Amino acid sequence: MPAEGLEWVSGDACTPDGFKAWALPRSNESGLSFALLWSECPAVFSGQFTTSAAKAAPIVVTQGVHRRGVSQALVVNAGNANAMTGGRGLDDARAMQRQMAEELHLAPERVAVASTGVIGVYMDMAATQEALAELGKRARHGKASQAQAAAEAILTTDTRPKTAALRIALSGGSVCLGMMAKGSGMIHPDMATMLAFFTTDAVIPKAELDGMVRRAVERSFHRLTVDGDTSTNDMVLVWANGVSGVGPATGADYHRFEAGLTALAQAAARMIAADGEGATHLLTACVAGAVSEADAALKARAIVGSSLVKAAVYGQDPNWGRVLAALGRVGHPFIPESLSLRLGEVMLFAQGQPVEFDEAAAKRELSRHEVIFWVDLGQGTGVAEAWGCDLTEGYVDINAHYRS
Amino acid sequence: MPAEGLEWVSGDACTPDGFKAWALPRSNESGLSFALLWSECPAVFSGQFTTSAAKAAPIVVTQGVHRRGVSQALVVNAGNANAMTGGRGLDDARAMQRQMAEELHLAPERVAVASTGVIGVYMDMAATQEALAELGKRARHGKASQAQAAAEAILTTDTRPKTAALRIALSGGSVCLGMMAKGSGMIHPDMATMLAFFTTDAVIPKAELDGMVRRAVERSFHRLTVDGDTSTNDMVLVWANGVSGVGPATGADYHRFEAGLTALAQAAARMIAADGEGATHLLTACVAGAVSEADAALKARAIVGSSLVKAAVYGQDPNWGRVLAALGRVGHPFIPESLSLRLGEVMLFAQGQPVEFDEAAAKRELSRHEVIFWVDLGQGTGVAEAWGCDLTEGYVDINAHYRS
Repeated sequence: MPAEGLEWVSGDACTPDGFKAWALPRSNESGLSFALLWSECPAVFSGQFTTSAAKAAPIVVTQGVHRRGVSQALVVNAGNANAMTGGRGLDDARAMQRQMAEELHLAPERVAVASTGVIGVYMDMAATQEALAELGKRARHGKASQAQAAAEAILTTDTRPKTAALRIALSGGSVCLGMMAKGSGMIHPDMATMLAFFTTDAVIPKAELDGMVRRAVERSFHRLTVDGDTSTNDMVLVWANGVSGVGPATGADYHRFEAGLTALAQAAARMIAADGEGATHLLTACVAGAVSEADAALKARAIVGSSLVKAAVYGQDPNWGRVLAALGRVGHPFIPESLSLRLGEVMLFAQGQPVEFDEAAAKRELSRHEVIFWVDLGQGTGVAEAWGCDLTEGYVDINAHYRS
Repeated sequence: MPAEGLEWVSGDACTPDGFKAWALPRSNESGLSFALLWSECPAVFSGQFTTSAAKAAPIVVTQGVHRRGVSQALVVNAGNANAMTGGRGLDDARAMQRQMAEELHLAPERVAVASTGVIGVYMDMAATQEALAELGKRARHGKASQAQAAAEAILTTDTRPKTAALRIALSGGSVCLGMMAKGSGMIHPDMATMLAFFTTDAVIPKAELDGMVRRAVERSFHRLTVDGDTSTNDMVLVWANGVSGVGPATGADYHRFEAGLTALAQAAARMIAADGEGATHLLTACVAGAVSEADAALKARAIVGSSLVKAAVYGQDPNWGRVLAALGRVGHPFIPESLSLRLGEVMLFAQGQPVEFDEAAAKRELSRHEVIFWVDLGQGTGVAEAWGCDLTEGYVDINAHYRS
């Protein structure tokens, strides 16, 4: 339920004015697919990056662009993460940046690079050069934008593309926010093999954009877990090209724009969770009454991250003891007597005691696509949501045999 | 490879002098099985308990025994964890303690209670009373000890009983250490639904025993993970009844006894990991060259706890990038250039670069029952091992359908 002044529209990363994208689908030979996202003018650039010590080469390159704060294009490949590939991998990522910049007649430091896929394998640079030349040609020739194809080209084990857009009414007029994202496995609070690209035609200074992006990521991607594994390649990138001529001008405008960015990021996080490897359910935990928002977030993530809760949701088994066990092992100790737990509409635990509940009603809640556990800790005012998915034989199958 | 003066013997928790056990197998009606462990005289008593805020009732009761420091008996049931059952659950656990004490003519505060099984269901106290009466009768009548049956009665989803024993040569003579344990799912560093009961006929003061138990648990059960879920019911209990008349007398003796206790606890941890729900492999990570033992332990646990590493081991896929991704997300940042990674004998990554390796040799390492990743971080002298298991469709199947 978006706040006042936010309107969901059917769209993607090219719905805001001044953005275009082109794509090359996966080649059977190289196993690589490519996408180019381009802004008609230099855009204020913000981002958040994996905190892993095992940073992939494109992370290092794009962090360099981020430090300068302006970008006009992004080249992405799926199929190879270019991670843990040492100096040669870094050279390859820089070569991608340089070639894409030349094709687009841009300075290299204006071009971001992202990769996702298998770790520890060198890039097929012959195939990459050919692909970047083709993408550059389409951009130079003003070919029709391929935003949906780009959203598909950045996927790996995802089963569907993830795009959304939002129109935001500000005091000076309206602006648009768009998004494309990918992520399915290796998803954990620190963003994991998760790529999320946001675009807006709003006019926003770098410092304000950075703060809004940091908080929106904290309340969306950091509350998402598929399998507890943080990736080497995670990035959330945001371009604000100012083409609408409109930007937040008042405190209320900033509040509304941040609410829109947060809503779009949460939509992306929910799409990623719902498309978790092998998932059959979106699993949501809403924790209220915590001593702080941080403690609520920690506990909500523990619930959606518990293998045992995830397996029980898959089995449509209202085994709520596992939810309480997950709550019990993190953060501020809860007090059983003040805690209540609901599965959708069905109360399971209250006042320190199991509640006799209707098994059929509980099964109905567990048969919905989105399964929601509601916790009230009764200890304070901290509230947070987190998202994950169930754990299925499909997850095991995908990950036992992905590389081979 | 145990240190000098330690000798593995075929045995269990009743191999040390003065301990007996009796057991009742799972009843089809109540779904409960029971075991009684008994010492012929009061024993110095030590233990470590779950750190979960969702502590089960028997944890509270046995922590009371632990505070007094002397115990002569333990009653265990499997099939119901008696956790998150409020005041009624606590009354039930106290009733078990009181009845068992009466049957054995002991003070209630000398009797420990442990439970494992489903969370949030009240105990079937009629079935429990009947079982405790039968166990008490066997003990009073001096019936033959049933140590192996007891090791079986404490299991839930385990596929095999877990027992071991060790003889330790001290300066004044030799003493014996024995063990029975259970644990298969909900296993994580903080010991999880893991029960481990150690007995010894050595003479050891409470304060010294407490210190040795704390350190041995840190180096064994806290380095064990099956699924990242800490249980409400974990406990490690140790009885030292002094019946041998021999005890550690010198610094060297204490060092040797602690080495024996640690080796036995590590053996138990390895058995639990190898019998993880659905497991087909024991997964071991040995991390050296860390800035501290704590950092080595954190990283070793991250490897064996990674769903993606676990699934790759199941699929016999040498996807070592996932090992580095796991290493990268915890503790002190590693330096790729100083890190090396081996799978068994096969070097996979060195000097910041992937190593070309023989796929057939890597597959051979992955076909062994115990799969070992060796990491040298090249940053310091901290060393630690951790144990886990692979992630299989079997795990999902067991946990999707355990309660129903």
